[in-house]
Amino acid sequence: MINLWRVTMSVPQVDEKRLWDSHLEMAKIGATSGGGVGRLALTDLDRDARNLFITWAKSAELSVKVDQMGNIFARRKGKKPNLPPVMTGSHLDTQPLGGRFDGAYGVLAGLEVMRAMNDASFVTNAPLEVVVWTDEEGARFAAGCMGVSVFTGEKKLEDALACQDIQGASIGEELKRIGFNGSQSCGGYPVRAYFEAHIEQGPILENEEKTIGIVKGAQGQRCFRVHVVGDEGHAGTLPMDQRKDAFQAAARMAVAIDQLAFNLIPKSVITIGAVNVLPNSRNTVPGGTVFSIDSRSPNDKVLSDLELSMRQICRDIAKDRNVSMRFESISYTPPIEFDEKCISEIEMAARNRQIGYMNIYSGAGHDACHMSTIVPTGMIFVPCKDGVSHNERESAEPKDLAEGCSVLLDVMTSFAG
Amino acid sequence: MINLWRVTMSVPQVDEKRLWDSHLEMAKIGATSGGGVGRLALTDLDRDARNLFITWAKSAELSVKVDQMGNIFARRKGKKPNLPPVMTGSHLDTQPLGGRFDGAYGVLAGLEVMRAMNDASFVTNAPLEVVVWTDEEGARFAAGCMGVSVFTGEKKLEDALACQDIQGASIGEELKRIGFNGSQSCGGYPVRAYFEAHIEQGPILENEEKTIGIVKGAQGQRCFRVHVVGDEGHAGTLPMDQRKDAFQAAARMAVAIDQLAFNLIPKSVITIGAVNVLPNSRNTVPGGTVFSIDSRSPNDKVLSDLELSMRQICRDIAKDRNVSMRFESISYTPPIEFDEKCISEIEMAARNRQIGYMNIYSGAGHDACHMSTIVPTGMIFVPCKDGVSHNERESAEPKDLAEGCSVLLDVMTSFAG
Repeated sequence: MINLWRVTMSVPQVDEKRLWDSHLEMAKIGATSGGGVGRLALTDLDRDARNLFITWAKSAELSVKVDQMGNIFARRKGKKPNLPPVMTGSHLDTQPLGGRFDGAYGVLAGLEVMRAMNDASFVTNAPLEVVVWTDEEGARFAAGCMGVSVFTGEKKLEDALACQDIQGASIGEELKRIGFNGSQSCGGYPVRAYFEAHIEQGPILENEEKTIGIVKGAQGQRCFRVHVVGDEGHAGTLPMDQRKDAFQAAARMAVAIDQLAFNLIPKSVITIGAVNVLPNSRNTVPGGTVFSIDSRSPNDKVLSDLELSMRQICRDIAKDRNVSMRFESISYTPPIEFDEKCISEIEMAARNRQIGYMNIYSGAGHDACHMSTIVPTGMIFVPCKDGVSHNERESAEPKDLAEGCSVLLDVMTSFAG
Repeated sequence: MINLWRVTMSVPQVDEKRLWDSHLEMAKIGATSGGGVGRLALTDLDRDARNLFITWAKSAELSVKVDQMGNIFARRKGKKPNLPPVMTGSHLDTQPLGGRFDGAYGVLAGLEVMRAMNDASFVTNAPLEVVVWTDEEGARFAAGCMGVSVFTGEKKLEDALACQDIQGASIGEELKRIGFNGSQSCGGYPVRAYFEAHIEQGPILENEEKTIGIVKGAQGQRCFRVHVVGDEGHAGTLPMDQRKDAFQAAARMAVAIDQLAFNLIPKSVITIGAVNVLPNSRNTVPGGTVFSIDSRSPNDKVLSDLELSMRQICRDIAKDRNVSMRFESISYTPPIEFDEKCISEIEMAARNRQIGYMNIYSGAGHDACHMSTIVPTGMIFVPCKDGVSHNERESAEPKDLAEGCSVLLDVMTSFAG
């Protein structure tokens, strides 16, 4: 009786064990001694991971195409094959000492959606596609999100192919070497919607005891470098009140900037991550200090107000401490808001399945942030242990991964009709 | 008439031009493009400087001996040759990018005293000696003041000879290589008194418009390394109130320690000169920070009170910022008080010559600090431009150098009788 019903058409069900096992299998490629994964973009390991995905995709009767940027598209036919596809995916490359879930989860959750639909002989109107984007991490070549940026038209194909790693190997050469210089042109066809499942890479869902993070958007980011120039002096002979100590000025700026960020919690963050003191010698009063500022907020106005405040802080302290200061802008990425309909569909799916959820903003950049510039886009976050990511210790629960995948299945089904 | 009087016996007079020219000549050996001197201990350049000194010493009819540590002693006979000598000197080695006066002045001022006495046919009761100490700077081998420390018995000869540079060459090997492994045993004979003329290496004399600094003693020094351990995190995804930012904790410690030192000006100084942040990446919340503390004071009690206060500051801030902290002692050098009689003779000489003088403490270590542990010792400071030393820009005025030399002549004459 049950078999008969399944053969005709049933409600697709995510298989938690199958999804988990596929993560374990994929994580063997580039496995590190610390339990993580090191699988840099367009290396032999990346090639092996791509080939494993293609083998699985073909077993699931998906048709596979590779474009000129090496992005892989695995398509499941719809009843109306000419409708634009509903797309999901992420990336298979990792940081040098990365984890098993950052990227791989989005790809394997997409694959599991297809497998679950196959099990249930469930066919959508619009086609579905799982995509593996090339070089999301940016750990090997100059910048990240390479494949998706060409797809969306943000970056030119020839510029992306010309990008080199520190050994001078280009993306174009490496795509050819590993056999992923596809013939399909990159982008240029309509997509109904794009969804990406991803681990949160932060501790918020875990702390709030929620399984689904409905990603409202991604934080904007402004990065700066502050150059403080004082005057070197002998640590024993230069009196305190005659010093122009660049590090002491920089330390005061850092503390004041940190306090500024605390007034804006929980949604904005400021990090002073890189600090270089000159000449960095025990017995010399520092003559120079350069430090980085990485500020992020979902609100563009907050971000630009923060910049003004930080500039003022640094100016005031430099004056007070008798040093000179240059406040250099390094980069600006505006905040992104994801599509309202995508967001509400994700919320509805989580509510229907009675899975705990909350709204969240992504602090990190993702392929989805780029896709949102051309198609309706949504992201689904699931918790990762202690919020740790870009780290061999990165970990997630099989049950959480499956619940995120179920929500993905529901929204793709809804959008594909 | 004048000639006749000079031939018999006149009052010795320092020759400002001769003293200055000898500095210019000596500074050619290891001259740097920036107008300074790079003459590391026991290199070929150091050998050439030593040989130039010996040539000059022999021209001045001084008898030259070299001891097992390569220290050079140039003696001018006294009327009573068995009396212990009155000694003066300093060093000819420099920092990698050092100046023309640090060390060289003390040696050349000593030589000028001898020449001035020759000119005046002036003979003291006790012999006079000019010494060139081996490796004062400590820029090449493990520690500084090597030669004098063996002379005073603070360091064993075999330990000093075994000290290696980073290429693995030992002091013993290098002394032999440059021909300065002398036969005379190092130390072990009585010295009446030791005087050292030196540039101040700080800005106090210049600011106070005094030519002579009567060095009362040298500051004691306590050095520490503070290890702050927090937790790394993603700069975009880790909320401010969940961070354990090691650098933010270290910056607060640095500011509080700096404020502590300001309450003790002018006589005590604290420097945080070396700061290393881990992993020192723009987009990672710092998981670790290690910084140095160099604290100096002429007062030993102040120095130990400072340590207690700094430990407390670091403990409190670590607790407040939710990071762990280790406060490591690196070194301790007690304050030194120079000999009362030497100090008062220097003061009398400056007053008699109507040269502006003031009391001062040395923030740097000198050969004289070590000599003070075994014989009555005094130091004479003269100004250097902008207080700059250990720097190619190091500069001093011919007139100031000559006036310091005149004071040296007076006190040596007084002690030698």
